Amino acid sequence: MEARYILHYAPDNASLVIRLALDTLGLPYDTALVNRAAQAQKSPAYRALNPNGLIPALETPDGPMFETAAILLWLADRHGALAPADDSPHRARFLSWLFFLSNTLHPALRITFYPDQYIGTDATAQATLRRHVQDTLPRYLDMLETEAAKTHPWFCAQALSALDLYLACLLRWMALYPRPHGGAGWFTLSDWPQLHAMATRLDQSKAAIAAIRAEGLGPRPFTDPQLATPPEGSAT
Amino acid sequence: MEARYILHYAPDNASLVIRLALDTLGLPYDTALVNRAAQAQKSPAYRALNPNGLIPALETPDGPMFETAAILLWLADRHGALAPADDSPHRARFLSWLFFLSNTLHPALRITFYPDQYIGTDATAQATLRRHVQDTLPRYLDMLETEAAKTHPWFCAQALSALDLYLACLLRWMALYPRPHGGAGWFTLSDWPQLHAMATRLDQSKAAIAAIRAEGLGPRPFTDPQLATPPEGSAT
Repeated sequence: MEARYILHYAPDNASLVIRLALDTLGLPYDTALVNRAAQAQKSPAYRALNPNGLIPALETPDGPMFETAAILLWLADRHGALAPADDSPHRARFLSWLFFLSNTLHPALRITFYPDQYIGTDATAQATLRRHVQDTLPRYLDMLETEAAKTHPWFCAQALSALDLYLACLLRWMALYPRPHGGAGWFTLSDWPQLHAMATRLDQSKAAIAAIRAEGLGPRPFTDPQLATPPEGSAT
Repeated sequence: MEARYILHYAPDNASLVIRLALDTLGLPYDTALVNRAAQAQKSPAYRALNPNGLIPALETPDGPMFETAAILLWLADRHGALAPADDSPHRARFLSWLFFLSNTLHPALRITFYPDQYIGTDATAQATLRRHVQDTLPRYLDMLETEAAKTHPWFCAQALSALDLYLACLLRWMALYPRPHGGAGWFTLSDWPQLHAMATRLDQSKAAIAAIRAEGLGPRPFTDPQLATPPEGSAT
């Protein structure tokens, strides 16, 4: 019997990207809830999976993996879907954008979610940092919209890609968090029609329906995000 | 005749990682200097290569690429060296750490180099952000040292890997910048012996010798960094 994947997750955490990928690929997997309320992701047992103490981690037949985009790319390559293959002429551009999401857009969101981790406890300094970084986000979405409009098969196309799944989650969190600065209304996804259309397709996918049930994400998690009401665990 | 790679670079910028990779792989390439003093990386012509306006970009037969780690991984895969292959059992862990460098360690450095881009013009706020983020760096180096001590073939091993080249440049910049907080002396690389040994091997490599000449990096750019005195262009 082949070893199954084990996804270490918390509701509406970055593990959601991997859940969507596993379900889109139609792969069987088990989940292990990380008790965020008890900071279980900082425990020695969890750090044996991800030394950086962040969610997700994925146990694979080749050992534990961490970093959302690394897991996403590895799954796509191992199962021959969701990303252009190594020898595809699309691979170069796809990788450029995957790393962009991972090292630019996603870290920008993290700063707005957890400003204390970057600047300490002063509330005014936190608010300044958050507002400044949040103001850079629309330019990144403009860049992504422009790229999507070039109609690549690997981004905002008919079949969902690894890039789509990742970006859709980032868009969801961008709309939901942080509450103090803007709440759900701070940006209107339909201002970026390609991204909005992709999120609409994802909302209607089998993978999203499974994630809605597993993590309590509400009826349209990617076009009309609501705070999760999960059947187990907590998002923070 | 096959199309040659064109590396758009500035001295001692992230393009250095790609230069080292190209030379380690023994690939022919041309360089195109980006005039940072004139902010050429923000020009429409350059943004056609990298819409995010950052250095490097690499022109390939499959079109322009951007994002340092994306280019690094693509070159490694295309030329079958510097990284475990797709079907290697080492691939999962290698990718985890490559993305970690790209989305955690490198962005942390960027915040300390360019705090104004994250928090605006207030010098006190900049200093607080910089100090806070700089204080997180030793923990990341501890994590990397621990991983290197497991003697993987793809990290701090006898043959230099994509991860080594990328990390060595990050270590260099970490030691050099930002001047106001600590200058070259703020950390001692030999506190992390595996990383130090890797940087020592790199210093002695043909690729480093070529980079020293091309970008004016001084005699031991990775174990005893000095500010670049490049024959053309400027680092900032």
